[in-house]
Formats: sequence, C-alpha cells, structure tokens
Amino acid sequence: MAKYCVGIDLGGTFIKSALFDHAMKKLAERTSPTPSTAGPEGVVEVMAVDAAELIRSTGLDRGQVIGAGIGSPGPLDLQRGLVIAMPNIPGFDDFPIRDRLAQRLGIPAVLENDANAAALGEFLAGGGRHVSDMVLLTLGTGVGSGIVINKRLLHGAHGIGAELGHMVVEPEGEPCGCGQRGCLERYASATYMSQYAQRLIEAGRPSSLDEPLRRNGLLHGADICIHCRAGDAVAQEAWSRAVKYLAIGCVNICRILDPDRIVFGGGMAKAGADLLSPLGAAFAALHWSLTPPRTALVLAELGNEAGVIGAAGVAWEKFGTGVSA
Amino acid sequence: MAKYCVGIDLGGTFIKSALFDHAMKKLAERTSPTPSTAGPEGVVEVMAVDAAELIRSTGLDRGQVIGAGIGSPGPLDLQRGLVIAMPNIPGFDDFPIRDRLAQRLGIPAVLENDANAAALGEFLAGGGRHVSDMVLLTLGTGVGSGIVINKRLLHGAHGIGAELGHMVVEPEGEPCGCGQRGCLERYASATYMSQYAQRLIEAGRPSSLDEPLRRNGLLHGADICIHCRAGDAVAQEAWSRAVKYLAIGCVNICRILDPDRIVFGGGMAKAGADLLSPLGAAFAALHWSLTPPRTALVLAELGNEAGVIGAAGVAWEKFGTGVSA
Repeated sequence: MAKYCVGIDLGGTFIKSALFDHAMKKLAERTSPTPSTAGPEGVVEVMAVDAAELIRSTGLDRGQVIGAGIGSPGPLDLQRGLVIAMPNIPGFDDFPIRDRLAQRLGIPAVLENDANAAALGEFLAGGGRHVSDMVLLTLGTGVGSGIVINKRLLHGAHGIGAELGHMVVEPEGEPCGCGQRGCLERYASATYMSQYAQRLIEAGRPSSLDEPLRRNGLLHGADICIHCRAGDAVAQEAWSRAVKYLAIGCVNICRILDPDRIVFGGGMAKAGADLLSPLGAAFAALHWSLTPPRTALVLAELGNEAGVIGAAGVAWEKFGTGVSA
Repeated sequence: MAKYCVGIDLGGTFIKSALFDHAMKKLAERTSPTPSTAGPEGVVEVMAVDAAELIRSTGLDRGQVIGAGIGSPGPLDLQRGLVIAMPNIPGFDDFPIRDRLAQRLGIPAVLENDANAAALGEFLAGGGRHVSDMVLLTLGTGVGSGIVINKRLLHGAHGIGAELGHMVVEPEGEPCGCGQRGCLERYASATYMSQYAQRLIEAGRPSSLDEPLRRNGLLHGADICIHCRAGDAVAQEAWSRAVKYLAIGCVNICRILDPDRIVFGGGMAKAGADLLSPLGAAFAALHWSLTPPRTALVLAELGNEAGVIGAAGVAWEKFGTGVSA
C-alpha cells in the first residue's frame, strides 16, 4: 500500500500543511491562520486538525501516513523536538511540539528549522533539484539559509550550522543584532539594504526614493529595486552595495562548500534578472582565477511553498526510505 | 585474514609511506627522497618500491593489502586519479598517478589532495578523533585546510571545496596569488604574517626583528613568535593581526559548518598556547552572543605524520569497510 507524509510549515501568520507521496507529488493542502493568542497547545491543535483533514479528504487510511514533518522558526532543539522560544507567539518555552503533535495525531513527527526545511524543499522540487550540493539564501528581513551536502541537510555538530547570514564579510563592519559586526545580512538583506538607502537620503542625498519614504515612513526592498531600474543614484548605490557583499558571500560559499548551485529566494529574489545579472558579474569578478566559476547562481522556484515541501521531505528522510523525486 | 592499507604522502622533498591495519595502527614506515629530476615515472617507481618493501618487511601476503592511498599536492583530478601539475617537479602533466601506481604495485589505489589527507589523518588519529565534524587549518606558507562533515571529507561538487585559506575576510584587501583580494591566507599564514612585519620595519618602525631580517634577508613565523613573546611591538602587531583574521575565519567556519573542533597545524601552531590563547580570546569576542562558543580550537597532534595516516584512511574508506579506530 502506498505511503504518504505530511509537511507542516509553521509561520507567524499562517500554518500551511500538505500531504505528499514518495515522489513529492502533492495530494492536498490546507492553510489556516496561526492562532497566535491560543498558546502552543492551540497551535498544535490547528496543526493536528489540518493534518487529519488532509488525510480524511484524500480518503487515505491513517496507517498509510508514515510521518509528519514540522518546519518551525527557532530557536529549536532539534534532537529533543523542542521549540525553545517562538518569535511573536508567547508560551513556547522549551515546548515539545514534535511529541505533542505526534501524540495528538497518532503519527510519528520530526522537527526541522524553517530555513533548513525551505532549503530541502528547493533541493527536492525547486531550484536545487538534480544536484547533490546546494545552498539556499533567502533575502528578506534577514538572510536565511540552508545547506545541502551530498543530498543531506547540514546541521553542524551543535545544530547551529548553515547560518550564512551571519558570515562576517566586513571586519569591524555594521553591528548586527546577533552580537557580531559585519554580518552578511547587515548588507545583503532587503531590510538592511533599504535602511542603507534611507540613511543616504537622511544624509541629504537627493533621490526619487524620498517620495515612498515620506509616504510610508520607511523603504521596502521593492522600492529600491523599482527606483534602481528607473535610474535613481541612491537606489543604485544601495542595490550595488547589497550585490557586492552578496557576491563576496557567494565566493566564500564556493571556497568552503563548492556547491553545484546557490539558490536565491525571498523578497529580493523577486527582482529576477535585476538581481542575478549584476550578482553574476560581481561574483565572476571577485571569484578566484584558479578555476572558472562553476557554481550556478539561480532563482528559487517554490516561493512560500518551499517550507511545506521541505518539511514533508524531512519526514520522508526520517521515516521513509528517502525521496525518489 | 587481517587486511591492511598503505598510505603514501607525496611531498616535494620526501615520499613518506606506511602500512596500517583497520584500527590505523602503524606496522611499518619508510621515507625516501622525492626523485624530483626523474619525472613522474621515477616518482611512481619510488612509491611502488617503498610500498612493496613495507609489505615484504612485515611478512604480509600482498593479497592482504587491499589498497594504497596517495596524498599529493595539486592541482589534481581526483575522479580520474590525475596529477594535473606538480609544483617543483616537471613532467606531471595530467599524469595518471593513481592507475600507474596500482598497475606497478598490483594493488588498487586512490588519490586525494594532501590537505584533505592531513585533515582525515587528524580526524582519524589526532586532534579531531572522537568527533564527527572537524576542520583542519594548516598555517604555513599558505593556509591549507580540510573539512570533515559527518565523518566524511567534504570535496564539493567540483572537487574544489575546503579551500578555507581563500575565504575572503577583508573586502578590497591584500591581493592574493589566486586572483582574489583579502583571502584569509594573506593575513593568517606564517609567510604573510612575516611579510607584514617586514613591511612595518621597512617603513621605519624600530624592532628587534631588524636583526634576523638583516641576517637572513627575510623573516620566518618563528621569528615573529619569539620576538612577540619578548615584547617587540612590531612582532606583537603582526602576530595580533594574523590572530584577528584567523578568529574571523573561525567565526565564519562556525556560522557555516558548526564543527565540533577546529584543529590548527603547520608552523604557526608550533607556538602552542601562544597561538591558542590569544586566538581563543579573539574568537570569543567576535563570536555571536546567540549561543556560547561551543566549537573547540585545538592543536594538531600528528605533525607531518597526518598526511600518511590520512592517505591510508582514504584507502580504507575506498576499499575497506571504513576505519574502526
């Protein structure tokens, strides 16, 4: 009898869940608002009800569903299946989300951090499929990341590897909330790129970004991209600066990991060729000359589906015989 | 009947070889001068004669020796077993060293680059034993490196990973022979640290290093260490600068790979606590505050034995059932 896995992407706003077969074909999906005032038990209840409904609606026997994977924001204790704390949802204080869901659902569960789950999703079904070694960089509020080496997620010895947004790319650079200085995400995330443009404007530089800044009180990554394309010098400086540091990050990823691909997701990646074209040029210019650049820089393909697909993939790896996609 | 492997460390000056059992216990070893004017066939001849003599002297049957591992300077084509070129020895032009040795010896052979072999050696029997994830940094003429993840060497998708000496740690920094700027090895290798001290002296800074510089025409890493300990300001500045960039490199290794240990070998590591003590302090100061530093910084333990042990380890992984040490 065919086997299936559930993937659950626990976000601050929505809980997405879906049911997949061994080839990562999606049979059904659901999206529910995250009950952010109902505490961790309320969150587990929504996850369990949605998963049960996915199984019911597809007419499967519960015994055919061999596991559920949960992708969650952190910090997490992956080995013990705990959410140490949850941004924006009080009550997650070393909460055993994995075991509570498994109990409530009667199906084994596994916990993974959301960035790793998204990387596995892109690896299994998106911008990283058909390769063995892949890095996902998600350029949004911060720079999220996941690493796949020899077809497996890299977790590190203490479960805190693959934090590429906190690679130092500028000694004595901008202070980061993590306590370091000069982290990649302080230069290359949509948020900090936008803040840099705002600083230039506040220092008196004339810019067409002045209008959205006055209207919204802050700038978004999309503002920078649009005004950059329209030729605004401040937007171009901010975009180029982010691209330069991103290229340094990519060079370092190649020197250390030498992946087949670096996949770009998140808001800034929506710029498409406006990101990849200058990034590819900067990467080639900064790359060593001992070998030509062979690591491909590509766009993510799954959007916000990556997390739920990757969460199911984690369940297949844990409880199944792997994914045959 | 017990099985054995041969490890061969092909260096520019000496060829070291040794015979190991499955627990990496050394039964016999030999060292011969590298016949640098005899061409690649002459090099293979020495390797084969030494390996045969190791087997003969221990009274083993050749059938008990299941493989030979060769650790070689590069560039190499690992998959095809070729030495693309050999520094200081002419004639290695895509030379099939692996297959020629296997033919000559009648035993299967495998090729690995010398830095990776040394990392595997420290992992199996030195500063990285008893852990799963380890990085070796060899601080000498350059900064050599090898990475072990989940007990396996990391090669990368194109066989050029684990080149940590060419991680960019200073954008628009010192130009490196590799074509990049600001590579770690331009700041943290014994050679470039010594050159930096020399530059300070040539710019007119008074220093007790003036004496060895005039005597030898250049400075060595050991000069910097000795004069640093004696309180010379120029030596201290050069040493601290190398340590600072090495600490940034270690932070980045933790953010990306999160290993159990970073192991330091090569000439600069002979300084022992004079390296580890300031490096540990700089590492802790630069490390993020989200988690305490858990990656241990330790000294290599095998000296120039690491390569021959690791070369045998590569053979065990390829032809045996792994190492049970």
